[in-house]
Amino acid sequence: MTQSAHLHPDRLFPASEPSRGVARELYPAVRDLPIVSPHGHTDPSWFADNQRFSDPAALFLTPDHYVLRLLRSRGLSYDDLGVPRKDGKPVADGRAAWRLFAANYHLFAGTPSKLWVDHSLQFVFGINDELSPVTADAIYDTIAQKLATPELLPRAILDRSNVEVIATTEFALDPLLHHQKMAADGYIGRVRTTYRPDDVTDPSRPAIVDNLKRFAELTGEDVATWAGLINAHRKRREVFRSFGAVATDHGVPSAMTADLPLVEKQALLDKVLAGRHDAADAELFRAQMMTEMALLSVEDGMVMQMHAGSRRNTDPLLMAERGTDLGADIPGTTDYVNGLRALLGRCGNEPNLRLIMFVLDETTYARELAPMAGYWPSLMIGPPWWFHDSPQGIRRYLDQVVETAGFYNLAGFNDDTRALLSIPARHDVWRREVCGFLGRWVGEHRLSRSSAEEIAKHLSYQAAKDAYRIK
Amino acid sequence: MTQSAHLHPDRLFPASEPSRGVARELYPAVRDLPIVSPHGHTDPSWFADNQRFSDPAALFLTPDHYVLRLLRSRGLSYDDLGVPRKDGKPVADGRAAWRLFAANYHLFAGTPSKLWVDHSLQFVFGINDELSPVTADAIYDTIAQKLATPELLPRAILDRSNVEVIATTEFALDPLLHHQKMAADGYIGRVRTTYRPDDVTDPSRPAIVDNLKRFAELTGEDVATWAGLINAHRKRREVFRSFGAVATDHGVPSAMTADLPLVEKQALLDKVLAGRHDAADAELFRAQMMTEMALLSVEDGMVMQMHAGSRRNTDPLLMAERGTDLGADIPGTTDYVNGLRALLGRCGNEPNLRLIMFVLDETTYARELAPMAGYWPSLMIGPPWWFHDSPQGIRRYLDQVVETAGFYNLAGFNDDTRALLSIPARHDVWRREVCGFLGRWVGEHRLSRSSAEEIAKHLSYQAAKDAYRIK
Amino acid sequence: MTQSAHLHPDRLFPASEPSRGVARELYPAVRDLPIVSPHGHTDPSWFADNQRFSDPAALFLTPDHYVLRLLRSRGLSYDDLGVPRKDGKPVADGRAAWRLFAANYHLFAGTPSKLWVDHSLQFVFGINDELSPVTADAIYDTIAQKLATPELLPRAILDRSNVEVIATTEFALDPLLHHQKMAADGYIGRVRTTYRPDDVTDPSRPAIVDNLKRFAELTGEDVATWAGLINAHRKRREVFRSFGAVATDHGVPSAMTADLPLVEKQALLDKVLAGRHDAADAELFRAQMMTEMALLSVEDGMVMQMHAGSRRNTDPLLMAERGTDLGADIPGTTDYVNGLRALLGRCGNEPNLRLIMFVLDETTYARELAPMAGYWPSLMIGPPWWFHDSPQGIRRYLDQVVETAGFYNLAGFNDDTRALLSIPARHDVWRREVCGFLGRWVGEHRLSRSSAEEIAKHLSYQAAKDAYRIK
Repeated sequence: MTQSAHLHPDRLFPASEPSRGVARELYPAVRDLPIVSPHGHTDPSWFADNQRFSDPAALFLTPDHYVLRLLRSRGLSYDDLGVPRKDGKPVADGRAAWRLFAANYHLFAGTPSKLWVDHSLQFVFGINDELSPVTADAIYDTIAQKLATPELLPRAILDRSNVEVIATTEFALDPLLHHQKMAADGYIGRVRTTYRPDDVTDPSRPAIVDNLKRFAELTGEDVATWAGLINAHRKRREVFRSFGAVATDHGVPSAMTADLPLVEKQALLDKVLAGRHDAADAELFRAQMMTEMALLSVEDGMVMQMHAGSRRNTDPLLMAERGTDLGADIPGTTDYVNGLRALLGRCGNEPNLRLIMFVLDETTYARELAPMAGYWPSLMIGPPWWFHDSPQGIRRYLDQVVETAGFYNLAGFNDDTRALLSIPARHDVWRREVCGFLGRWVGEHRLSRSSAEEIAKHLSYQAAKDAYRIK
Repeated sequence: MTQSAHLHPDRLFPASEPSRGVARELYPAVRDLPIVSPHGHTDPSWFADNQRFSDPAALFLTPDHYVLRLLRSRGLSYDDLGVPRKDGKPVADGRAAWRLFAANYHLFAGTPSKLWVDHSLQFVFGINDELSPVTADAIYDTIAQKLATPELLPRAILDRSNVEVIATTEFALDPLLHHQKMAADGYIGRVRTTYRPDDVTDPSRPAIVDNLKRFAELTGEDVATWAGLINAHRKRREVFRSFGAVATDHGVPSAMTADLPLVEKQALLDKVLAGRHDAADAELFRAQMMTEMALLSVEDGMVMQMHAGSRRNTDPLLMAERGTDLGADIPGTTDYVNGLRALLGRCGNEPNLRLIMFVLDETTYARELAPMAGYWPSLMIGPPWWFHDSPQGIRRYLDQVVETAGFYNLAGFNDDTRALLSIPARHDVWRREVCGFLGRWVGEHRLSRSSAEEIAKHLSYQAAKDAYRIK
Repeated sequence: MTQSAHLHPDRLFPASEPSRGVARELYPAVRDLPIVSPHGHTDPSWFADNQRFSDPAALFLTPDHYVLRLLRSRGLSYDDLGVPRKDGKPVADGRAAWRLFAANYHLFAGTPSKLWVDHSLQFVFGINDELSPVTADAIYDTIAQKLATPELLPRAILDRSNVEVIATTEFALDPLLHHQKMAADGYIGRVRTTYRPDDVTDPSRPAIVDNLKRFAELTGEDVATWAGLINAHRKRREVFRSFGAVATDHGVPSAMTADLPLVEKQALLDKVLAGRHDAADAELFRAQMMTEMALLSVEDGMVMQMHAGSRRNTDPLLMAERGTDLGADIPGTTDYVNGLRALLGRCGNEPNLRLIMFVLDETTYARELAPMAGYWPSLMIGPPWWFHDSPQGIRRYLDQVVETAGFYNLAGFNDDTRALLSIPARHDVWRREVCGFLGRWVGEHRLSRSSAEEIAKHLSYQAAKDAYRIK
């Protein structure tokens, strides 16, 4: 007999009355609201080409670094899990990898990955058995069969998931070919790009000089002058906006910003273009570019997102064998008060600036971010991110930000995922946790029922649209 | 129909039984205990002159940076909220500002500010409607009318709030005129000053040289010698004690202390008096002064309070337009172990020293402060402070300090407020949270009912008197 | 009438249904599992000689720095508590110290120390009265009387506590005389040593040069060359393994590791042996030794434990009067990502490496350690340690590590104690908290009942055996 994986209708709600009852009553009004997904990493070719997904492992396993990393941590090899190698040596095929995943699925007890996978299996594939060595093949076959049907094509998945709008993320040099195709289709608006210029703002990248050269070509600007460089961004942002972009995104190791005099900015740029910059120069250049991006946002109204605090590629072996984004990025401490001082001092009171901060260092929620978002008109707190996009992560987040920042300085929810099928599962976890949180507070008579109803709806849907200025 | 703002009698208690029942039973014995308020920022002229408050906005809005900052964060301007400008340009009048506050009162859902305002409206003004655009004018008129009555004069407010003793905070150079008037009245004892010598201990203040000169004049000491400087403090502390002071208070960016040889102290002082000190000198001077203050406390028994960790005036625009204490001070990380090493190494075991630490960096509760308070006889942990003086803030505090420091190394509660009417509301939140916390622990059979009763009373009243040596 | 100290059978379980019921049902299956204690500081002479304990104070009070420090923090002197002085001056005798402890026992309300003492009194000594001034003498006499009976000899205590295996901790230079005696007895296996080479890896110790000289003599290696030094460790580890050691242990102020070229390692060693090293050299030497220990673990399979982050001996007066380990060690911040980079980069993917990290800086649970343990096959998270080995500490730990690291990257429980009688009490607290945690999650439908049953058993027993490779 196999164990049932039926998800309980009360999952994640408070266990005890009266809070459970309140959560249960709040939830139906938010459960079916459209999904607004203003930040994520789905592949735009899916929506442009609308081709079927190849196999279950390619859908659930190999693109999901949350799943891969936990299996690796228990001694399973990425070869056996079918993760491609740079040297092209063979790795396990989809079914073999899937069996290994299934045989170790008990390792995911208590993790959000299990919540997301179970949700997809049940609600997308109608699978009610728990994934296990016994059920591995049958589940694999069921998924593979359904993937061949029209209702599991990428655009159909957006439809069935009730995704009103979803943003992908592209680098400044990206030719946006898939978005051009979608523009021709009239699909832009539902799918939107996001301007992520790390490729031309971060001099610690080995290709920075080449990248800046290509940036010049792409925009027709002389990026050897500071004014030209900024103008290149100005033009490129405009192009991105023509493909629906409402936001920019910046992946940075720290929250450091700078506001230097022009002569120092030009000197930095000269160094970078000559390839003579050291690590401190790179950091300062990037810090200055954050302020420049904020100033461009003041001009053009694009919402600026900062994803700070990840220490990337901490395993040199993984990097050499297979590359980036496979589980070896680890959060570190972040200093938002000193880091953002230059940027906020320069334009933090500008009505047109909107800066959304994503946090990996939870100690900053109550100490720095909530006080800052509760003061600066330009600053909002993004949803719990990466490892913290989980039931406990969401609880710690709401626990620590709401009292000081209020509910209305929060940017709603982002799924921030590469895993298309997990999108409704992730939004559902957020909505359930919001209802649970509000249920607890109503249960303690800290919030009226009518406020809770309004806030539940706001945080599930409107907050994201407002924060990202999506009309 | 307007919504009722009636506060629920069980508010903030655990939502579920049996913990709720225990909290409910503990609360009546502490609800009406006198208020001991050994640290705060009320204006001594209120109690000296006992004049009526001008208008509702001046009472609830313009002096309350918690309220102002949250409104600003949602795009409202301080001009429209009636916050005075340095350049004297006109700002909104009381009623206009009040209407704006009321129109945005929903932003305060979930914040302690709403708890405090609702509490005052209901219990001081008998207002049972929720503040909203609909009720704004009527509530304004009701408050304005009551403010004209004798029972809302400052001393009457102390009476009706059952305030047994309240401390104000004055700088070393303050002439203490209001306290002199109260001394003449026999009102000192109920109102007490606190010695806050930041004006003469912090060389990062532009006026430091002038201030030290005035300090010399005021005390008749030669502050150009280290011994003279310390003697000036010794004398000034004595003067403050004659106006009821039981404590000193020190607002410092970090917890750094120093214990230098005399020759280095004198060299530092020489630099400061010559205006030749840099930022590091200023920090070291301040650090040394902390140890000097501790040594004076060993002599005279005054309780030493350190409020560490705020980064002040992070918005230069606000500072230029309107000045300090309007919401732009943001907490930062604090290192108590290394910071206090010099001071504690010098006199941490002195029976006469009492050092109360206030914390903005909650990560130090369990990691540093609770272990330190659970070791050093001189060290106590102050109540959750500033942004953390809130239901969740109090829970995180008790969660993280009690197991290692016990209940008896806590200094009870301080309201630390400029907002007179919020005092009973804040103490009520503390007492409810204490009862809720104890209710949970009794519910988990971690604490006997009789211990809980004793601890609830201790933390609501006696702890503050004991910690501050108030007879 | 004296108060009863009967421990409630539901203590520490969630207060409300349905979580309480689940916890209650999970607990019986783990309550009586054997105790595996792979890390601790009990005295090996106890088990080698199996002599009776002298008196109640020597058992409960003077060796327990948790108890001593809290009494000191409320102004009691270590002289009056019977803590020996270096100068040999007299201190209070056992009964006098015990009376003082009893008179202040209310200070322990809410602390884990009280849980442990009450547990021992009730379950080892059958004492059902609460310790208090009234009961002090009667309880002292009851304990003293029982200590004279065979069932309270050290080995009998292991039997009655159902301790399957317990590890002590010895320095590299320790002659292991007690373990030799136990080997002759056939008692090794139940009691095992642990290799803690801080005495020869930490150049900040004044005796380091002498220690290295003795290390050379003990091993017959030329420790003046790097290869010889490593070989000395290799041999000494082998000796420790012959006395049952499965693990090494490293007490380090930070998590810093290094991976230097041989020429730099030799230069460092030369400096240390010449006594010319400064603090930075000492840190770097220790950092390099961590990587060397990891490489030896790759060779010999010993499990490597790092206990990082304590700032030792922060009270110079205590140190001068009575020495180490008496309550003045305080945690500090720790950077695991940068700290472990060199070690993990060198051998973090080696299948034979097992590295167990113990954490004093709880901010690293969710931010660093859980992500790292959820990636690196070699890395596991040790149980909550020192001040965090408490009900709330365990809750914060599980709250913050499980979602990202899963349950199976945790090393189960360690009691880490010098207090023999507290061992079953501490394991019981862990097991109750695990059941409570799982009960809450089952109550929220985040975990199936059958998973919870399996995980409860795993974390109570098998996890520690697996983590420490105890066959």
